[in-house]
Amino acid sequence: MPAPSQSARRTIDRILSGATPAEVAKALQPRLPSESPLAPNLPSSTDYSADGLRVRRQLLHGQGIRIRHLADGDADPETLAGHTENFVGFARVPVGVVGPLRVNGTAAKGDFYVPLATTEGALIASYHRGAYVISHSGGASVLCLTESVGRSPCFVFETVMQACQFVAWALPQVDSLQRQVSETSRHCRLSDVKTSIIGKEAYLLFEFTTGDAAGQNMVTFAAEAICRRLVEGSPVTPRRWYLEANMSGDKKATVGSFAFARGKKVVAEVTVPRRLLRRFIHAEPSELMDYWEVSVLGAVQSGAIGAQGHYANALAALFIACGQDAACVSEASVGLTRMDLTDAGDLYVAVTLPNVIVGTVGGGTSFPTARECLEMIGCYGDGRARKLAEIAAATALAGEISIIGALAAGDFGKAHQTYARKAKRR
Amino acid sequence: MPAPSQSARRTIDRILSGATPAEVAKALQPRLPSESPLAPNLPSSTDYSADGLRVRRQLLHGQGIRIRHLADGDADPETLAGHTENFVGFARVPVGVVGPLRVNGTAAKGDFYVPLATTEGALIASYHRGAYVISHSGGASVLCLTESVGRSPCFVFETVMQACQFVAWALPQVDSLQRQVSETSRHCRLSDVKTSIIGKEAYLLFEFTTGDAAGQNMVTFAAEAICRRLVEGSPVTPRRWYLEANMSGDKKATVGSFAFARGKKVVAEVTVPRRLLRRFIHAEPSELMDYWEVSVLGAVQSGAIGAQGHYANALAALFIACGQDAACVSEASVGLTRMDLTDAGDLYVAVTLPNVIVGTVGGGTSFPTARECLEMIGCYGDGRARKLAEIAAATALAGEISIIGALAAGDFGKAHQTYARKAKRR
Amino acid sequence: MPAPSQSARRTIDRILSGATPAEVAKALQPRLPSESPLAPNLPSSTDYSADGLRVRRQLLHGQGIRIRHLADGDADPETLAGHTENFVGFARVPVGVVGPLRVNGTAAKGDFYVPLATTEGALIASYHRGAYVISHSGGASVLCLTESVGRSPCFVFETVMQACQFVAWALPQVDSLQRQVSETSRHCRLSDVKTSIIGKEAYLLFEFTTGDAAGQNMVTFAAEAICRRLVEGSPVTPRRWYLEANMSGDKKATVGSFAFARGKKVVAEVTVPRRLLRRFIHAEPSELMDYWEVSVLGAVQSGAIGAQGHYANALAALFIACGQDAACVSEASVGLTRMDLTDAGDLYVAVTLPNVIVGTVGGGTSFPTARECLEMIGCYGDGRARKLAEIAAATALAGEISIIGALAAGDFGKAHQTYARKAKRR
Amino acid sequence: MPAPSQSARRTIDRILSGATPAEVAKALQPRLPSESPLAPNLPSSTDYSADGLRVRRQLLHGQGIRIRHLADGDADPETLAGHTENFVGFARVPVGVVGPLRVNGTAAKGDFYVPLATTEGALIASYHRGAYVISHSGGASVLCLTESVGRSPCFVFETVMQACQFVAWALPQVDSLQRQVSETSRHCRLSDVKTSIIGKEAYLLFEFTTGDAAGQNMVTFAAEAICRRLVEGSPVTPRRWYLEANMSGDKKATVGSFAFARGKKVVAEVTVPRRLLRRFIHAEPSELMDYWEVSVLGAVQSGAIGAQGHYANALAALFIACGQDAACVSEASVGLTRMDLTDAGDLYVAVTLPNVIVGTVGGGTSFPTARECLEMIGCYGDGRARKLAEIAAATALAGEISIIGALAAGDFGKAHQTYARKAKRR
Repeated sequence: MPAPSQSARRTIDRILSGATPAEVAKALQPRLPSESPLAPNLPSSTDYSADGLRVRRQLLHGQGIRIRHLADGDADPETLAGHTENFVGFARVPVGVVGPLRVNGTAAKGDFYVPLATTEGALIASYHRGAYVISHSGGASVLCLTESVGRSPCFVFETVMQACQFVAWALPQVDSLQRQVSETSRHCRLSDVKTSIIGKEAYLLFEFTTGDAAGQNMVTFAAEAICRRLVEGSPVTPRRWYLEANMSGDKKATVGSFAFARGKKVVAEVTVPRRLLRRFIHAEPSELMDYWEVSVLGAVQSGAIGAQGHYANALAALFIACGQDAACVSEASVGLTRMDLTDAGDLYVAVTLPNVIVGTVGGGTSFPTARECLEMIGCYGDGRARKLAEIAAATALAGEISIIGALAAGDFGKAHQTYARKAKRR
Repeated sequence: MPAPSQSARRTIDRILSGATPAEVAKALQPRLPSESPLAPNLPSSTDYSADGLRVRRQLLHGQGIRIRHLADGDADPETLAGHTENFVGFARVPVGVVGPLRVNGTAAKGDFYVPLATTEGALIASYHRGAYVISHSGGASVLCLTESVGRSPCFVFETVMQACQFVAWALPQVDSLQRQVSETSRHCRLSDVKTSIIGKEAYLLFEFTTGDAAGQNMVTFAAEAICRRLVEGSPVTPRRWYLEANMSGDKKATVGSFAFARGKKVVAEVTVPRRLLRRFIHAEPSELMDYWEVSVLGAVQSGAIGAQGHYANALAALFIACGQDAACVSEASVGLTRMDLTDAGDLYVAVTLPNVIVGTVGGGTSFPTARECLEMIGCYGDGRARKLAEIAAATALAGEISIIGALAAGDFGKAHQTYARKAKRR
Repeated sequence: MPAPSQSARRTIDRILSGATPAEVAKALQPRLPSESPLAPNLPSSTDYSADGLRVRRQLLHGQGIRIRHLADGDADPETLAGHTENFVGFARVPVGVVGPLRVNGTAAKGDFYVPLATTEGALIASYHRGAYVISHSGGASVLCLTESVGRSPCFVFETVMQACQFVAWALPQVDSLQRQVSETSRHCRLSDVKTSIIGKEAYLLFEFTTGDAAGQNMVTFAAEAICRRLVEGSPVTPRRWYLEANMSGDKKATVGSFAFARGKKVVAEVTVPRRLLRRFIHAEPSELMDYWEVSVLGAVQSGAIGAQGHYANALAALFIACGQDAACVSEASVGLTRMDLTDAGDLYVAVTLPNVIVGTVGGGTSFPTARECLEMIGCYGDGRARKLAEIAAATALAGEISIIGALAAGDFGKAHQTYARKAKRR
Repeated sequence: MPAPSQSARRTIDRILSGATPAEVAKALQPRLPSESPLAPNLPSSTDYSADGLRVRRQLLHGQGIRIRHLADGDADPETLAGHTENFVGFARVPVGVVGPLRVNGTAAKGDFYVPLATTEGALIASYHRGAYVISHSGGASVLCLTESVGRSPCFVFETVMQACQFVAWALPQVDSLQRQVSETSRHCRLSDVKTSIIGKEAYLLFEFTTGDAAGQNMVTFAAEAICRRLVEGSPVTPRRWYLEANMSGDKKATVGSFAFARGKKVVAEVTVPRRLLRRFIHAEPSELMDYWEVSVLGAVQSGAIGAQGHYANALAALFIACGQDAACVSEASVGLTRMDLTDAGDLYVAVTLPNVIVGTVGGGTSFPTARECLEMIGCYGDGRARKLAEIAAATALAGEISIIGALAAGDFGKAHQTYARKAKRR
């Protein structure tokens, strides 16, 4: 959709800012290294030794770049092997703690202090308030419903009939493909295969479970093994095939995630007594309901996927603290917040997140502060991934109660002002 | 959309895992603090002194939670005031550097070492490869087209006619509201007001510019000042009004962002010579084109917004490194990647990101490592926000070239295996 | 998504058209049948005998409605020239009548018998029931808010900078382009131009008003005249350009239509007294509310655009009867249905349809039966298009009340069985 | 979004129905007019005189096609029972014929004259042109992949756990529910049940096959029978339940339809020789490709579902002519158009329509002119619904080739002007 002409005009004015289009165009000209020498290449990119680190830092230093804080209080750079190429140091993100948040789940059970890494003022305070309300309502009931991580290869044929023949031949093979999968990882299991034929292209969607790892690499390797096997054996040979054809929802919000969970699909719910709501949120249950109805229609008009307040705040902060893949906030922040009144006049609130893609082994989980944060909620190591997903959903629930309450009660601006003022006084 | 019955069945089985529904239901029962004592509350939540920090750590320690690494190498906790309530320490995320990435923009101009905070193996190596290709193609041409941050209040009336009367009265006031806005911040400017009437509700969308701050608090305060003023003066009094009715795309991907940019709308493009592509990406321009067509249709089928590969990886890693609001990855990772062949047979690639919401002042920008990372790319402080947005877009472009190239050339799995293997050898 | 402020202002001006808000508000007041007698009810609704037909026709005749062509005989095939190539005869679609439907609009004002062409059993009966409820609640208040028909050409350049230069040059020309537009049609007026730059492509969205024609051909010719003029004069020549690049929402449902109305954007609302609802819909206001909340979340999960029950039924049947372009049901059936409780415990229901693309001149409007159907509701010829749009929206409102009521009350299956049984008995 | 593997297998079985893939592939082979003579062309396409009409009717008569009712007179109003309440007469929509359109499908095989009811000038001429190109390329290869009509009830509980318990109890009952279904109709079969739990609500999606009926009433009655049975037997009683919760895509475009076909999912494809394209479409294959890429990105920006040109035109006109439910154009017009170049430099074009919801028995199919139109394409009565769906898809394909060709060649405005001028001359 295009921008309104008025603002488009402003844009153009600003782009030009007094210069002629030709001058700006010139500024944008490519400058080849042969004509305009390129700054030096970063040496020893994947040398994870202390020597490699020193050489990289030296180069940056020679470019006038200071990295005192990044460098300070380091872990052994060898531990970065396989994780962070071109390593130069550590970013530090302040961690605040929310809780205790009482969670009554199948995997998560207890009162948790949830670590959130963020620099956004009022965020932690808001989640803390929501956690207080949840805990004093008896805690959040949480269920991890499904789990699955997908890869969606595409096989390009010459005709739709070839695509059908391939699918007809491939689907019966699926059960026997588990062996290929197991050879790539002992934690990875193929759980389902779905298909979509669009013209002469056959898209498959492999769904895997990945143990307690987030599993994105795992499913890449497994899917590749399967695809190679299928292509070798197929009676019709695809002209081309691709390991991932952008249908798995990897690193992006999709409507499809309501049909095909990515990671864990989790529901967290709580019934907040009216009395408690009035006291701590300063609003009636019906006031939150009224606001949320208007807000859902706002989301629908904006072309959002699902309808929720700000799951992304909980998930980004938790993911950074706990060594999760923060880029997955794109898909993980999709979901539905639901409110209802009970017969007793209390407020039922539920969040449903279909894409809580988290791991408690592998990825960044063993990095020192990530491990500490995971341990803080008892989620480090094998057998804890569903627990982590449930805590994540309960935290999102806390945030929804707090923000919807603040907007319904007219406290939203005030709350941010209170916390921001502390910053300004400095 | 519902889950297929087969996997739904598996879900249920797993939820129960041998227990009866009644037993699981019991496990999910609320447990009131009066019956089941709640763990101790975290004291001194917003006490930013060393004392406050010590007290919080002591409490956690008493709960058996170790925070050695979080605690180590700390910044002065006073600096967290207004940013991170309930502060307990710093999460450390390893930072790798991509580059040099040559950028030919209106605001960003030069060869940059771009800091990316991530623990995902192969990610930085992939962006580094894309940066190499871009730089050796002469650099990315980048334009920051529009900028705007919105708040979307809603005013609830009794009839559609009242809603119209309000809008009819309010729109002519808009120019005079700039004063209200200025009183809340000297950097905030109201740039446009859009309206949507849905039944008896009048939704407004205020669009602001926020100087070099990401500006989310700024627009909250400004919009509140405007709303209060409008409600006071209006000839028809709304029954209720809300400061934000979920139409501004805050912390969520929306189709609306193609019409109404959130943050900066930036285009980055490069023409990669065929020779270079073959040498470093191991594929022909037409092979990338072929793949990308299939991939766009994959995205469309999945119900994605826009069509791109993995902007989220660049943005999440850059945002964490540079003290940006990582929750905004939700909206910032929406966009369109476009490929075309030139007459000379070279590959044109462009990324268009309508929601690059970044700041170079305020928020987490002044935290020690964030500041260092921003300084690494010359983006700390006033007058740099558009530069940061342009570098972000150029980095996203590097990632698209690399991942689309890898998937087109069949290198995707292999690349991840190479980098993951380093991890496993340890 | 909200509409730009400029067009919002135009909207208000047009709604008022010289009247004061108070006068318009008065026009929209409900008029209860007890005070302002309702036109006679249609007798023998499901009497399918020749007698039943005669009685119904008699009643319409008594209201001054002529139905000679509906009742018999072919039109002269010469009249098809310019409309239906390869003509071989006429399809006959049975027309039933809904009403009287009381409408209190700015353009439509009165009690209408609305002709619906359909073969789907129970459909007309359901709308008839809704019309009864609306009329006995005092009628639907209806406002046509905005009107616009778009064409979205695309100009392909070599670089984003060229695309910007073109846009920068083109936008100031816009005002002078009205002459080009006028040369193609005296009814067509260019009302706005919006832009979207994606990489090296400049998409424009021309918005036109088209008098009382639906105007799709009109805007095609006008846009072509504009584009040719722009391309001739532009300082940068596009490599290629296309008259329509699939962004105007022509013949397809798009989220964009919430921001950029296609045809007329119309709101119709009614407050149904609780007593009336219980008697004729057999449900409490709160029961319809409860159902609708669950139904909106169903729509959101399915990836629908907007949230409504079945606008398409009203629009397809009305469009076929009245010689409208039935293919436009695709876009016209997008919208939002909103329910709320009043303080008095009555049910407020509103429908908002942003894409009611209709005409009362041109297209199929002058075909004999179409003309008769249009005349039946006083919508044939110049100056009636907004009236037709308002009646369409009021009819959609009737359908929403009836279907949501049936589903909330558990009558949905039963109702269809009742009407279908009549068919089976034959 | 892909379909679950189980239904994919059913698809394949049905496509093959006892034949080998090779046999089916053979059935789909193009048959060039040079080898297999094409049925005669329709003469005097735009001769609107009585003579022209007579000549066209004569030709059809010579092909064994009867058009008595299309040509004159009213039906007996008694035949409307169960279809059109409040009946007052018949709307007449002029029908033009497109073809011969050569179709090589599994169900549709032959050269068809396709009846389209429309008053939009140039529409039939455009489809006629597309049909000509397809037929002279050897015909469209068409496959009906899946079929299904859904109902999506929702059961509201007090907690998510109750919702899970219900689903856990209900799913194993599904096989035994076929008896309930059969009692409501002997043609209706339950093919799958999918589930989605959102907070305390359990949404089910029942998928049925409905023989050769479009089947919307059929699935309503069947779903109601199932729901009543489930509610009676369930160990947990829902507080409320609804027969349809707006997730089945009934009368609305949804992204979900890519995952869960509504009606028939059909692919139609053709490879158009470059020579033919240049001669009749006046453009190179690469020019159509170039345009279509830009157009897909236009659709994506506008927030459309899928990416296609104007399926709605074909479907609305065919549905009105053939007594189908024209309101279903909303969902049926969703799909994906795909273009590619063959190694020989010819143009491959495919359309994929996941929601071709049509019937050849029931509904309006037995109305006199509808029956004649269905008979014109050999689609009246039992065992013809898939054939009708395949012809619909092939017709949509013709329209895509023609409109994309016109827009790529710059002929779009001109074509409409040519046909519109005929109208103006009158």
